[in-house]
Amino acid sequence: MKNGKEDRERLKKQLRFIVEIDKVKNIFRQTYLADAGRKENDAEHSWHIALMAYLLQEYADEPVDVGKVMLMVLLHDLVEIDAGDTYAYDAAGAETKRDRETAAADRIFGLLPKDQGTCFRKLWEEFEDYETADAKYAHLLDNFQPLLLNDASDGLSWTEHKVKKSQIYKRNEKIKETSGEIWECMKDIIRQNIEKGHVEEG
Amino acid sequence: MKNGKEDRERLKKQLRFIVEIDKVKNIFRQTYLADAGRKENDAEHSWHIALMAYLLQEYADEPVDVGKVMLMVLLHDLVEIDAGDTYAYDAAGAETKRDRETAAADRIFGLLPKDQGTCFRKLWEEFEDYETADAKYAHLLDNFQPLLLNDASDGLSWTEHKVKKSQIYKRNEKIKETSGEIWECMKDIIRQNIEKGHVEEG
Repeated sequence: MKNGKEDRERLKKQLRFIVEIDKVKNIFRQTYLADAGRKENDAEHSWHIALMAYLLQEYADEPVDVGKVMLMVLLHDLVEIDAGDTYAYDAAGAETKRDRETAAADRIFGLLPKDQGTCFRKLWEEFEDYETADAKYAHLLDNFQPLLLNDASDGLSWTEHKVKKSQIYKRNEKIKETSGEIWECMKDIIRQNIEKGHVEEG
Repeated sequence: MKNGKEDRERLKKQLRFIVEIDKVKNIFRQTYLADAGRKENDAEHSWHIALMAYLLQEYADEPVDVGKVMLMVLLHDLVEIDAGDTYAYDAAGAETKRDRETAAADRIFGLLPKDQGTCFRKLWEEFEDYETADAKYAHLLDNFQPLLLNDASDGLSWTEHKVKKSQIYKRNEKIKETSGEIWECMKDIIRQNIEKGHVEEG
């Protein structure tokens, strides 16, 4: 590995990937920042939930490997560089989402040296497959963070999309499997936002 | 810990911190994104270097604990919520930086439950003290990432601030202590940018 030319080729691939993924900073989501000033992008969202992964690990009902979950959430949205963000309540977009994202994973993780590309690809697939405790905890964070931001921004994204209570429950119903405590907390937040008129009953 | 009321108080503190740190998404740096479209903020920068921490660990001349470094870089800029970003080549700002950031650390990490606040505070201090291999590697990433973005954006931030070769070397001279390979790569990038007229000789 330390023989000049091959090594330089490897570093070059890594740097090309590092510059390529800068694009995720321009993939904007439907969620507003807590101060409601503008929408959030994927890099910011991923940064936020990586820190949440560390802070909220005690609420995962099954043990998780928090270092692995941090890496998983840091990279989970990179496919959106090619595939774009699909809003949680966009049913038409959801149908083609998997195909678009798989092609994106081929290209983007394919920029890395093979060992690292395979490692990232596997972590992304583990996230998508939603089978392991780590993947379930990563999804909990991915769902719970926009809920916190929506709550902080007086439900701006919910009211804009006229989101109903049943839609939020359907979207987040799996939180219950992963953390009883975060599930109770989520229910409180939704109840408060119905009372304030930010979320529609029904 | 699982006795209802106390537990809720703990979660409340954690969520308050999580919403508070959202503000770091509005702390803008002097570095432009790779596409030169706008400047980068602290959350995006921290996300980027956390992934770089994983990808470039093989170039650290001393072994590092990559999970710990990831957490360290994810939180290292939170103090800027109160203290603001001090540009790398702003000498006047640098003089008061430490005091401003210490007061910020007291307030921001103080929002967390005591065990987690202490953990984050210690990681931030370890980063600032620049003594351990983990802290040195974190600093390498913190310095090398803007260099990559400046290079990708045709040196926009360098030309705006009329940055000289000697300033970049002074700012980044410690990269050499941490990674011979990244140091060589950095020198190549600077040389190329002098040739293109993005960085002034001298």
